[in-house]
Amino acid sequence: MARGRKLYEGKAKVLFAGPEPGTIIQYFKDDATAFNNVKKGTITGKGVLNNRISEYLMTKLMEIGIPTHFLKRINMREQLIREVEIIPVEIIVRNIAAGSMSKRLGIPEGTQLPRSIVEYCYKSDELGDPLIAEEHITAFGWASPQDLDDILAMSLRVNDFLSGLFAGIGIKLVDFKLEYGRIFDENGEMRIVLADEISPDNCRLWDTTTNEKMDKDRFRRDLGNVAEAYQEVARRLGILPEGGLQDLQGSDTLQ
Amino acid sequence: MARGRKLYEGKAKVLFAGPEPGTIIQYFKDDATAFNNVKKGTITGKGVLNNRISEYLMTKLMEIGIPTHFLKRINMREQLIREVEIIPVEIIVRNIAAGSMSKRLGIPEGTQLPRSIVEYCYKSDELGDPLIAEEHITAFGWASPQDLDDILAMSLRVNDFLSGLFAGIGIKLVDFKLEYGRIFDENGEMRIVLADEISPDNCRLWDTTTNEKMDKDRFRRDLGNVAEAYQEVARRLGILPEGGLQDLQGSDTLQ
Ligand SMILES: Nc1ncnc2c1ncn2[C@@H]1O[C@H](COP(=O)(O)OP(=O)(O)OP(=O)(O)O)[C@@H](O)[C@H]1O
Ligand SMILES: Nc1ncnc2c1ncn2[C@@H]1O[C@H](COP(=O)(O)OP(=O)(O)OP(=O)(O)O)[C@@H](O)[C@H]1O
Ligand SMILES: [Mg+2]
Ligand SMILES: [Mg+2]
Repeated sequence: MARGRKLYEGKAKVLFAGPEPGTIIQYFKDDATAFNNVKKGTITGKGVLNNRISEYLMTKLMEIGIPTHFLKRINMREQLIREVEIIPVEIIVRNIAAGSMSKRLGIPEGTQLPRSIVEYCYKSDELGDPLIAEEHITAFGWASPQDLDDILAMSLRVNDFLSGLFAGIGIKLVDFKLEYGRIFDENGEMRIVLADEISPDNCRLWDTTTNEKMDKDRFRRDLGNVAEAYQEVARRLGILPEGGLQDLQGSDTLQ
Repeated sequence: MARGRKLYEGKAKVLFAGPEPGTIIQYFKDDATAFNNVKKGTITGKGVLNNRISEYLMTKLMEIGIPTHFLKRINMREQLIREVEIIPVEIIVRNIAAGSMSKRLGIPEGTQLPRSIVEYCYKSDELGDPLIAEEHITAFGWASPQDLDDILAMSLRVNDFLSGLFAGIGIKLVDFKLEYGRIFDENGEMRIVLADEISPDNCRLWDTTTNEKMDKDRFRRDLGNVAEAYQEVARRLGILPEGGLQDLQGSDTLQ
């Protein structure tokens, strides 16, 4: 599939114009960053795994009626998505205290939360993605109250479904980050769809019995076996081909 | 644990007074019935498997904040539950057309529904558990509009979570039946909790790749290997002990 011009290069992915207007090719890199770009590195094979894992999870979510930007996987590192107007708010859903919530509120990592908690951050690398309240989102017009209702309801459904999916394969879904965007159909009607990616880059995944981390915290905290952990997630999801990563058809170079 | 007097004998379970006031011991039989008691039979080991499967699913649902009647499993065939005032409405959640919906509406079995559909039936063996509308439920006072809102919201959460859990182990959750009941706390405040059981007796479960039925339809339709199918569900859920059913501690006789 012919890639158009490069639209944006982010920390983990590159966006290219897609074959049809309104489509984008999302290319998954092996680059990893943490602490707002202070720590940088490479996780060999991460792009291939996240491309496949995100395809799988988005597809399963669409099957239960969650609208997403995903169209199809093109090859090992690329997927075709619908272009959206990204809502500049990161939605974080937490089931167990960890990371920034543990630090900010002094709740030990691993504490079961009284119920799932949804947090919002303003998507701005310069400002370090600061925590915000619904009040800020609607006052500054980043999303309308109605948009926010839809986003909250969808995020809670995503949490229930993914919590079940991961529970079925011996993994606790500790927390995760979502991004949403706006799409306008032929009649100019606006719809909100799930965008970006869902992968061990933006989920915290702990083994149910050992509590071993199977996500980007292995990179952030220098725990080692980072690529192996991502691969184990794919294996348990049943999407690691017999022949290993090589068997995922298609090119793996960013030429 | 000492069983009190027998309170009720149903088609699949027997209820005994529990050790504390407000508790019940739910005993799971191997008896199977279908078509409102017209077809009768025995599925060897079903009671043991449903007791364990229902324990597992109720426990996982409580972990995501769904209140249930479940307290603990006592032995192979018995579990301790909280006594509730059963709401006489069966809630059926459907993702794929099958069974009575296919017949009533002429939708071929296996048709993916446009979205999850919730149906209500009036719990009455004499009347054959007839389909009803929300209108009947609130008009006859079986549940208040507020109760019904809670029941609907919980049922959709249960559907999302269980759809994910089963998807993770290669099983499609086609449809299932739930029962809810009322509990009154120390202050006389009423709460609605999930009751009865969740098992292959009241879920339709199809293998994701082969569409093979792994539920009570094998009994209803004389497809054979009924006990084996229930056992395979438990095995995929990771709750079948190495030593087989014998390893589930405790008595298996209804003496
Ligand atoms: N369907 C889509 N249409 C347009 N943009 C999208 C879509 N899905 C994701 N994006 C955006 O593409 C970029 C993905 O790249 P990457 O994740 O590498 O960015 P990043 O370095 O994390 O920067 P950011 O902090 O903006 O996410 C993000 O800015 C994301 O918001
Ligand atoms: N926590 C509870 N407290 C009281 N009753 C309960 C509770 N959980 C389930 N029940 C009831 O216990 C009975 C379970 O027995 P069983 O499933 O064998 O009944 P059944 O023959 O299917 O009859 P029914 O049509 O009433 O379900 C059901 O009537 C169910 O509504
Ligand atoms: Mg990003
Ligand atoms: Mg019953």
